[in-house]
Amino acid sequence: MRIAVLTLYDYLDSGNGYKIRLLLALLDRPYRWVELDIMTGATRMPAFLAKNPNGRIPTLQLEDGTCLAESNAILWYLAEGTRFIPAELLGRAQVLQWMFFEQYSHEPYVATPRFIKKHLPADSPRRAELSMRLEQGRAALAVMEAHLATRQYFVAERYTIADIALHAYTHVAHEAGFELAPYPHLRAWLARVAAEPGHVLLTRRP
Amino acid sequence: MRIAVLTLYDYLDSGNGYKIRLLLALLDRPYRWVELDIMTGATRMPAFLAKNPNGRIPTLQLEDGTCLAESNAILWYLAEGTRFIPAELLGRAQVLQWMFFEQYSHEPYVATPRFIKKHLPADSPRRAELSMRLEQGRAALAVMEAHLATRQYFVAERYTIADIALHAYTHVAHEAGFELAPYPHLRAWLARVAAEPGHVLLTRRP
Repeated sequence: MRIAVLTLYDYLDSGNGYKIRLLLALLDRPYRWVELDIMTGATRMPAFLAKNPNGRIPTLQLEDGTCLAESNAILWYLAEGTRFIPAELLGRAQVLQWMFFEQYSHEPYVATPRFIKKHLPADSPRRAELSMRLEQGRAALAVMEAHLATRQYFVAERYTIADIALHAYTHVAHEAGFELAPYPHLRAWLARVAAEPGHVLLTRRP
Repeated sequence: MRIAVLTLYDYLDSGNGYKIRLLLALLDRPYRWVELDIMTGATRMPAFLAKNPNGRIPTLQLEDGTCLAESNAILWYLAEGTRFIPAELLGRAQVLQWMFFEQYSHEPYVATPRFIKKHLPADSPRRAELSMRLEQGRAALAVMEAHLATRQYFVAERYTIADIALHAYTHVAHEAGFELAPYPHLRAWLARVAAEPGHVLLTRRP
């Protein structure tokens, strides 16, 4: 079988998957899209674990069959050599700094409560985690707000994959229970990202 | 005041800080080392928050005063252009894939239980998190074990910053309560990393 294009294994409501869909749209790159239902265990089946042994979407299968996991590593792979990663060393490291911030200090506290509220039953014991997660999430949003008080974008005053990574779950933070009124600079930045030419929505099926 | 060298803000027992100390030793780069006591809130003081608004070590202050946070972004900054990051696109993305795996699927479940056991009081309510964290940590170690069953190093069959990032907390996983006997390939890889010329120990004060 010939695999001529990129294949993205994904789940429509995933912000991590949306990062890749948004960048591929901005780059105008064609790809095959395969949706897996994470709620019924599709990412824990042997066929998918052979592609990503950590059992998570998004996973990108390259033209030669190699699979790449971790949303922010996939962003880097697709964006190297384009306008979405700065050319200079410090700017590149700052893009990574914000992407590691996103995965360590933001995603577990903004994406995970959204998942618990949207996808788990009303009586799930995991709802007990919500208040702790929302508190840490507000701390992450405050760090972003302070950074954006004097900037248009996160790094090098231009739209990079750091913005794409942080936008993904921040723009749906209200679905996790966050009120964004206290973060005016964050809201202006979200509007700026949404106004970029070629922007697509999380809800848009490729 | 002239800042002629790199300054690393750090805490000796931090595996995230140790990643940077280890790479700087391997690169034979001089630096100034400033230890902050994370247990008494030194990283939450205004003077340090001005360097890293997210209030975490390690933070690297560059020669021009710019501060860079997030251990794996600092590794990237120091290693670009050296033998510790592959030159080709896919290898670079795979290094990032394993570093994002480390921060999202490994560090919270291997480093955090170690922190709870070593640094929090015996009656800390956070001890209730230990069994969940150790279970997730064993899943991360199993993913690493399977990957290393056919490889000497994580990426491109050579020692990269992906190995440095994953070694940091894995080599002290026993302090978190993990038993490494079920992971022979992981143990062989740990021994391989420790045998690299120029290796330094986590407990060695710079």
